[in-house]
Amino acid sequence: MSGIIGVFSKDNQKVSKYIYYGLYALQHRGQASAGISINNNGFIDYEKNLGLVGDVFTSEVINRLIGNIAIGQVRYASHSEKRSKINSEPLVVGYKNGALSICMDGALANYEELRGKLEENGHLFQTDLAGEVIASLIAKYHKDSLIDAIKKALTEVNGSYSLIIMTKDSLIAARDPHGIRPLSIGKVGDDFIFSSETCAIECIGGEFTRDCNPGEIAIIDSDGIRSEMIQSKKRALCIFELVYLARPDSYIDKRYVYTSRFNAGEILYTECPIKADIVIGAPDSGTVAAIGYAKKSQIPYTEGIIKNRYIGRTFIEPTQDIREEGVRIKLNPLTSNIKGKDLILVDDSIVRGTTIKRTVEMLRNAGAKSVHVRIASPPVKHSCFLGVDTPNEENLIANYMTVEEIRKAINADSLYFISLEGLVEASGGNNGFCKGCFNGEYPVKRLKEE
Amino acid sequence: MSGIIGVFSKDNQKVSKYIYYGLYALQHRGQASAGISINNNGFIDYEKNLGLVGDVFTSEVINRLIGNIAIGQVRYASHSEKRSKINSEPLVVGYKNGALSICMDGALANYEELRGKLEENGHLFQTDLAGEVIASLIAKYHKDSLIDAIKKALTEVNGSYSLIIMTKDSLIAARDPHGIRPLSIGKVGDDFIFSSETCAIECIGGEFTRDCNPGEIAIIDSDGIRSEMIQSKKRALCIFELVYLARPDSYIDKRYVYTSRFNAGEILYTECPIKADIVIGAPDSGTVAAIGYAKKSQIPYTEGIIKNRYIGRTFIEPTQDIREEGVRIKLNPLTSNIKGKDLILVDDSIVRGTTIKRTVEMLRNAGAKSVHVRIASPPVKHSCFLGVDTPNEENLIANYMTVEEIRKAINADSLYFISLEGLVEASGGNNGFCKGCFNGEYPVKRLKEE
Amino acid sequence: MSGIIGVFSKDNQKVSKYIYYGLYALQHRGQASAGISINNNGFIDYEKNLGLVGDVFTSEVINRLIGNIAIGQVRYASHSEKRSKINSEPLVVGYKNGALSICMDGALANYEELRGKLEENGHLFQTDLAGEVIASLIAKYHKDSLIDAIKKALTEVNGSYSLIIMTKDSLIAARDPHGIRPLSIGKVGDDFIFSSETCAIECIGGEFTRDCNPGEIAIIDSDGIRSEMIQSKKRALCIFELVYLARPDSYIDKRYVYTSRFNAGEILYTECPIKADIVIGAPDSGTVAAIGYAKKSQIPYTEGIIKNRYIGRTFIEPTQDIREEGVRIKLNPLTSNIKGKDLILVDDSIVRGTTIKRTVEMLRNAGAKSVHVRIASPPVKHSCFLGVDTPNEENLIANYMTVEEIRKAINADSLYFISLEGLVEASGGNNGFCKGCFNGEYPVKRLKEE
Amino acid sequence: MSGIIGVFSKDNQKVSKYIYYGLYALQHRGQASAGISINNNGFIDYEKNLGLVGDVFTSEVINRLIGNIAIGQVRYASHSEKRSKINSEPLVVGYKNGALSICMDGALANYEELRGKLEENGHLFQTDLAGEVIASLIAKYHKDSLIDAIKKALTEVNGSYSLIIMTKDSLIAARDPHGIRPLSIGKVGDDFIFSSETCAIECIGGEFTRDCNPGEIAIIDSDGIRSEMIQSKKRALCIFELVYLARPDSYIDKRYVYTSRFNAGEILYTECPIKADIVIGAPDSGTVAAIGYAKKSQIPYTEGIIKNRYIGRTFIEPTQDIREEGVRIKLNPLTSNIKGKDLILVDDSIVRGTTIKRTVEMLRNAGAKSVHVRIASPPVKHSCFLGVDTPNEENLIANYMTVEEIRKAINADSLYFISLEGLVEASGGNNGFCKGCFNGEYPVKRLKEE
Repeated sequence: MSGIIGVFSKDNQKVSKYIYYGLYALQHRGQASAGISINNNGFIDYEKNLGLVGDVFTSEVINRLIGNIAIGQVRYASHSEKRSKINSEPLVVGYKNGALSICMDGALANYEELRGKLEENGHLFQTDLAGEVIASLIAKYHKDSLIDAIKKALTEVNGSYSLIIMTKDSLIAARDPHGIRPLSIGKVGDDFIFSSETCAIECIGGEFTRDCNPGEIAIIDSDGIRSEMIQSKKRALCIFELVYLARPDSYIDKRYVYTSRFNAGEILYTECPIKADIVIGAPDSGTVAAIGYAKKSQIPYTEGIIKNRYIGRTFIEPTQDIREEGVRIKLNPLTSNIKGKDLILVDDSIVRGTTIKRTVEMLRNAGAKSVHVRIASPPVKHSCFLGVDTPNEENLIANYMTVEEIRKAINADSLYFISLEGLVEASGGNNGFCKGCFNGEYPVKRLKEE
Repeated sequence: MSGIIGVFSKDNQKVSKYIYYGLYALQHRGQASAGISINNNGFIDYEKNLGLVGDVFTSEVINRLIGNIAIGQVRYASHSEKRSKINSEPLVVGYKNGALSICMDGALANYEELRGKLEENGHLFQTDLAGEVIASLIAKYHKDSLIDAIKKALTEVNGSYSLIIMTKDSLIAARDPHGIRPLSIGKVGDDFIFSSETCAIECIGGEFTRDCNPGEIAIIDSDGIRSEMIQSKKRALCIFELVYLARPDSYIDKRYVYTSRFNAGEILYTECPIKADIVIGAPDSGTVAAIGYAKKSQIPYTEGIIKNRYIGRTFIEPTQDIREEGVRIKLNPLTSNIKGKDLILVDDSIVRGTTIKRTVEMLRNAGAKSVHVRIASPPVKHSCFLGVDTPNEENLIANYMTVEEIRKAINADSLYFISLEGLVEASGGNNGFCKGCFNGEYPVKRLKEE
Repeated sequence: MSGIIGVFSKDNQKVSKYIYYGLYALQHRGQASAGISINNNGFIDYEKNLGLVGDVFTSEVINRLIGNIAIGQVRYASHSEKRSKINSEPLVVGYKNGALSICMDGALANYEELRGKLEENGHLFQTDLAGEVIASLIAKYHKDSLIDAIKKALTEVNGSYSLIIMTKDSLIAARDPHGIRPLSIGKVGDDFIFSSETCAIECIGGEFTRDCNPGEIAIIDSDGIRSEMIQSKKRALCIFELVYLARPDSYIDKRYVYTSRFNAGEILYTECPIKADIVIGAPDSGTVAAIGYAKKSQIPYTEGIIKNRYIGRTFIEPTQDIREEGVRIKLNPLTSNIKGKDLILVDDSIVRGTTIKRTVEMLRNAGAKSVHVRIASPPVKHSCFLGVDTPNEENLIANYMTVEEIRKAINADSLYFISLEGLVEASGGNNGFCKGCFNGEYPVKRLKEE
Repeated sequence: MSGIIGVFSKDNQKVSKYIYYGLYALQHRGQASAGISINNNGFIDYEKNLGLVGDVFTSEVINRLIGNIAIGQVRYASHSEKRSKINSEPLVVGYKNGALSICMDGALANYEELRGKLEENGHLFQTDLAGEVIASLIAKYHKDSLIDAIKKALTEVNGSYSLIIMTKDSLIAARDPHGIRPLSIGKVGDDFIFSSETCAIECIGGEFTRDCNPGEIAIIDSDGIRSEMIQSKKRALCIFELVYLARPDSYIDKRYVYTSRFNAGEILYTECPIKADIVIGAPDSGTVAAIGYAKKSQIPYTEGIIKNRYIGRTFIEPTQDIREEGVRIKLNPLTSNIKGKDLILVDDSIVRGTTIKRTVEMLRNAGAKSVHVRIASPPVKHSCFLGVDTPNEENLIANYMTVEEIRKAINADSLYFISLEGLVEASGGNNGFCKGCFNGEYPVKRLKEE
């Protein structure tokens, strides 16, 4: 997963600031690396490195990054990939028609095949990024028209992608034919913005115009914005964007993320009502659904667990020389709220099951009389190959346990997962989702198991 | 304000880990500097510097800090003080009876007078810390008994203080006769803990035993724990600890902080009921009171503003070259929740009035139909000289404006502050508070205006 | 210019240490960036960045770099190139036959042409490194035999190069057909070494075996070492290696660098004898020739200028707010040795003329009665395109001034440059040098002026 | 040992730059810590930390250090002291008459006694610095006149010291009655300078005026410079300043350091002539004496060992996993110069004997036919307690071995130490030296063995 953003201005030479602030607003989409590339009068300068936006960019760097077109990315390193500088994006390449820079959110199902073909043709690869394959295809196909080359390249590509490509005089976005990953278009003053999520557009003081359509290529240059189509297929937005990935203040394909989660909380209660003293959310992922659950059920919403906001990358994990089991630095229960209570714990999803197990245990140790777990998405049974970093299937608890077995394993008094229909309803009704994690049906053919 | 913690063990040579994790749990009490000093077989080693706990301590440093007795501090630099390494605590000094280390939360009303007298006697001072004055008095009075010297020193001192003093074989805590600042006692296994707040004891896997009493000196050495009294005066716990300073999961003098804030939210509604569509809290300080308000009023609690959790010390503040007014990196409204709504915004307090004004404006820009502001503490009219870093009185908006004038200034549709009686009731009833910020009545005589 | 080194071991998994220490010994060949790549059981790990060896490599990094084959490089950024991380070497690439890593000392005369052709074929480039062009050619030509591909690639290449290429099971060195840049072969225990200079072999405790021959490809794998030839042309070792570039304790093509410089000093006196009180060297480049001059002339060798050894990359250059003209932080004359003396100042070369001018002025200010300048190489009149970063010809003082004009410009009492014949004699006699900087005759055709 | 410098200006608010550059020129006197304190209109700001000048001071820090009076120090941590930030100087203290800052080169024989007395009086100490004791004495005695207080304080003090004290309107230097440590006075434009060595005055573009006299207190304020006397005793400049400590381009008490070392080389030959092929110096400490030896003996001076100039504080020392014995990163012999030669190796001194032993071994391994060691100071038999960090006496090789035994131990063909008379003659004749390291006669009574 990644967060990507691009800005095009006719005359503002300081668009790197927009990218910088926009990346802060997209940081939840990836904490492994951050990067910005910028068109400084035809020369592409850039800075990228491992770390958070605040680690990679100093005042000095941002002041150096002068130019009127820029793109940026925050990136999540998948669990099967080594964290490596070289896989930072944006990628910057030179080819026969000059320089271009590319950043991408998504994953290609036929990455290995495409790369293999290019390598057969003598191409080198210096990263493991799907963006490098796409850049190579563009270079291969670019005769007269860059847009034609991009179209031709993307026709060969299978998978999920939201792309932003920068040249010395244009900014081009493309979204895969199913619209699996989000991509939005906006303006700040007279300048144009592409962004993974609308929250970044809002946060830099811009206005959201519209979603980039599935299969659309949107091109911005000094003549303004225009669109072409790669091809359009059945819409299949990754429903996990609404469940967990996106920021609650973003709109994706006309749905408000907060509302989807709140609705899921309400539906959780409707589908499986129960009495209890309080409703709490697992911090922070379950909070919004817990608020919705509390509203619908009329059971009081209460904070149950404090999350320490100061834990950062330099935090030293507890080891056994201090009583590891008892240490609660990251999360600590609000004992006085918990003790002697029948409580409902709402979380967004269960993947491996380890976190929810620890949380239930913590609440029991804090004196909870009963802990009823409610999950705002169905059991995750399949591993995503389209950009969400779920573990291999053998590590997905719902893949090898029934709901009742999971309940026992996590020591909950009761456990309920929202139905897939309920989640779809919460998400605004069925106008097109990828629900592969839950039902194994993906819009793109899976070529091989990772 | 500061957070302090000390651990005494008979045989565990790794108590620095407890201090390290405890400081993470106390980080909200001070972000200017952090420090740990430790007794390594009679030699006092230490590390302290400007920055957060995560900035100051690496694995390497924590592994170097070997010993069985240790103290630590996170410190807030007051607005009138330059941020300076030299004012980091714990202070480590040598004197005729060996070495001692001291850390302190609080402020002395007669600091200047005491320091002046010591200087007349030829003493040097290398910091601006009240702890250095106290250490000097202890060195001056220490003949045979350290405890007698501490008692004699503290008899001369006027103000608020919670102190932890480490020698090569003992750990000593003292709390001022009014108990203005909090101080708690606990155990982790066989080891003893002193801590500003109980949350740090819990977080390191320990158990809270009791509050240190006003005027008490608690001494831990190889014989266990015992107490002596400096003197006891009327209890006067700083009520701001409950309003804002302490962590919601701490108990202070038998009150649970979360509950006090939740109660204040309920009482706010009872004192001044109003109808509206939703209740939101100013993040994060108003959240708990907003939840209480929502419960009592039956108006739905809703998240209204997203706080960006990635903003850290390296964040580059927006300047005018990007449309400053529109940039909303730190806080962004959940537009879809706000638009067209009559809403109640709950915050813990109004000091200068600038933050709440910006928040109201942000909500109006997001489309709020009306914004009713409710404050979970009375108007702050007086500047604290006992350890809370309130600005000078001329900068306190409630000192030069009526409530109605403030309402206009912050552009709220209505504004209500909880009554002082209401706050006291919320805080568990009147068994002893310093309410000086609200009514100007302090338990200690103010010697001069800063 | 660059320093390169490679080590192949059958079983030692810690060869990164050899590379690390070897790079310290080669640091004089490039201070812009440093890098190591290593074969860890088929996976190529690496670390490279801007800065000195000591800046780029920590204990942690070196301990992470596990493997039995490794290459490393220190690199000088040419004056026409931006200092950029991306141009750090070794380069690591994947292609159809796996991964390879490459580092190179030298410069290609037909770089633009080769890159252009590859780009026409759809290749991307991510750096400005000649090594990337060579890697692309190898990928293009690699059918069955890597060595054949390397030979085919190098046949297309014109210029100076010493290359080290690492695959998952071999280490391959190649030197251009003229042998313009140095490259040596050695052993440490049972492990093989390639290195730009023999000093690195000695410094890691190894033994120098022989020079890599012009046009030779030397291949090391588990079967030992063997050689093939690209083609062999007239030897043309860059004579500047002996004048300035190489470390005095290196042997290059059977010449000892110290001896060449010492001889040049002697010949300088023989060609143009003069009387004076003392001989001093410009630190540090003129020291050895000055010692030779003193020996031959019987005029006492004296230290005349102290060089501050603590000036590093964090040094803040003096600006005008302190009396810039008088500040002598980097170099300070030994006044008492200089005052009232007729002195001979020996330096290795004059390029722009600015440094020698400041040095003469400094000596005059220190009271020198006369300053006679002797240069241990002929006037530099041509700009190198084969790897030595000389400025453009319009900036070469000897290109637009006669010797007498230079003498006046630098305010010397007399000025003498060694003859080209003298330099060749000092360098061991004429068995093959590139003397292009002096006489404009290069072994490779210059394609265009930079 | 330390290097200290102070600058007083009437109107220049940027004297921190002079201190910064001056500390670079004094860096050889201490590499453990560096610091600057500065008078910014009555407020004393400062920065100090462990590390070299280039590590401690960034542009940002130097630009922050505004003011017209400043002092600075580079400090060596003695082998018996932990390297600790707290022992960085300058020390900054507040006392009844305001603030002062102090830095000191030297050591007090009665430090323990003085500190003990002050502690009996109730004083705290926060460092192990002699300067803190002196500051405490000044605070104790300061009634009306600071100068009287300094005089009274220094009368109680026994030992070696060069002090610079800064107040808000004056700069005061003091040198102990024997003048054991150097201290010089100069001007840069209209501004006054005190400095440990004249090289720092020269390097910042100033002019050396005169040495500060033994027992002198020199006071600079807006009225100019004036002097008072503490008391004057028999001159006893530490002769090791000339042998090793000071920079060769400094004048100390009218002697030029380079000349003293050169003379010692000449006298070494005169006292004990021998034939050989070449003379080399141990880098860098023996170089100047080797040049003198070569001149006198007419045996050619040759460079014999290359010192790697890039080894810094981040260098990873070789461990046994690479063939430790053979690694020669820091020093490498110029084999071609050494092989088959009878050579004379000149060094400044032998302390523990370990370094010279390794050097002789390295030269033998490089093929030297014979190695004759000549030392430009007599055998060091006594441990200094006056500021030179010699090891305890049991570790001084000359304390437990005869010269012949040392020769065998270091495996030299012959070994000769200059006579004490010879060293004194080389140093300009006997007008007052401390020669305690050689003959055990110190100008100050040693109170106890460390």
